[in-house]
Amino acid sequence: MAAHATDVSLAVSTVIFALRPHPETGRMTVWMPLVRRIREPFVGKWALPGGPLEPDEDLAESAARTLAETTLLTPQYLEQLYAFGNIDRSPGGRVVSIVYWALVRSEEADVAVETENVRWFEADSVPELAFDHNLIVEYALWRLRNKLEYSSIAHAFVGDTFTLSELREVHEAVLQKPLDPANFRRQIEGSGQVVPTEHLQTGGRHRPARLYRYNRAASDENNGPLPSRSLPGRTQGAS
Amino acid sequence: MAAHATDVSLAVSTVIFALRPHPETGRMTVWMPLVRRIREPFVGKWALPGGPLEPDEDLAESAARTLAETTLLTPQYLEQLYAFGNIDRSPGGRVVSIVYWALVRSEEADVAVETENVRWFEADSVPELAFDHNLIVEYALWRLRNKLEYSSIAHAFVGDTFTLSELREVHEAVLQKPLDPANFRRQIEGSGQVVPTEHLQTGGRHRPARLYRYNRAASDENNGPLPSRSLPGRTQGAS
Repeated sequence: MAAHATDVSLAVSTVIFALRPHPETGRMTVWMPLVRRIREPFVGKWALPGGPLEPDEDLAESAARTLAETTLLTPQYLEQLYAFGNIDRSPGGRVVSIVYWALVRSEEADVAVETENVRWFEADSVPELAFDHNLIVEYALWRLRNKLEYSSIAHAFVGDTFTLSELREVHEAVLQKPLDPANFRRQIEGSGQVVPTEHLQTGGRHRPARLYRYNRAASDENNGPLPSRSLPGRTQGAS
Repeated sequence: MAAHATDVSLAVSTVIFALRPHPETGRMTVWMPLVRRIREPFVGKWALPGGPLEPDEDLAESAARTLAETTLLTPQYLEQLYAFGNIDRSPGGRVVSIVYWALVRSEEADVAVETENVRWFEADSVPELAFDHNLIVEYALWRLRNKLEYSSIAHAFVGDTFTLSELREVHEAVLQKPLDPANFRRQIEGSGQVVPTEHLQTGGRHRPARLYRYNRAASDENNGPLPSRSLPGRTQGAS
């Protein structure tokens, strides 16, 4: 462990995923906000929101701050993704970026304002980004799809209570394929990840559907022994 | 992304796990090498091997180098674990440590020499370590046990071919509990992680047993789109 500062800069960036309907097909897909760079290198290119780590900020605090500054959002889920540190990833001098990923609920994403320098993109078809940010987005999408299979991460995209149809639509949107409703119900109920509530959802086009909630007792796959964090106004798990 | 250097130092440390028999019980358990600190802060305390990131080294290269310098080992498996960056984790000034974890085969661990300042400890009962290294070890052990359930990580502890008994002993050593041989066989064969070879293992105390190998087609849960790395003299997967 170094006592002296090295010539390596440290930055924190955040991949933010939300589910939104595609404007043409209407199908739910994964979207993410990007910021336009206003200085070199890569001026004018789109990039992940982020910035240098402030000396008095924890890593996750830094991620949450730049996220709030760019999108006005506080995420339901904020987790460290990976540290990217290839020697030649930044032309202006060596930068190691510790990348977080955040999942936000669709209603939250709706309030996020687009400006000239902040725009939402479909995550599977972002333009050519600054630095190695295309690789980072690709890795984050892979991790999201992979983690959906063995964890309860999908819950970050729904409300505190939800119907199994709503949860299935989240899986379908992330995986970009239709899922058989009966099979999905069997798998989810068998996993112990959700527990039924006493309440029904009414008022939609369909007949009333049972509301479920996330089974917190089965949700220790994120943090392990790491201290869990709270962001302002919201309880959330990070790992 | 910062163009200027911050006042934060960057270090890379490595948690190295190997399976070794416990000297008293003879039972296989998880062991790890630690290095004694020879300067402040925490002089005399045991710590994870590591050091400052060199400006011309990639993160994984740095992890592999300090690992080789302290233990003479090249790991079968080397993966980024987590970046630890709490503000107050180092009394000598702010240090963010990007931690890798490595799994080495028992035969490899046997050649690792102990010196006055390098010693192997049972991972579940290390002494009070420097910095926040106890938390890091605890998190790495949790990750190892967790990942054993949903990935083929156990293969890093066995040879290219192995019997199902050998693989079960790895699971038992990591989880520290006996597993039913018939159940284990069913689960592993059902997972598609291993494929039988044409060969039998002979010469032991038991009747000849089928040798299996790792099914590489089913092993994409590690890297995703990240470029895979080779370390000197060894092919390995990192994520």
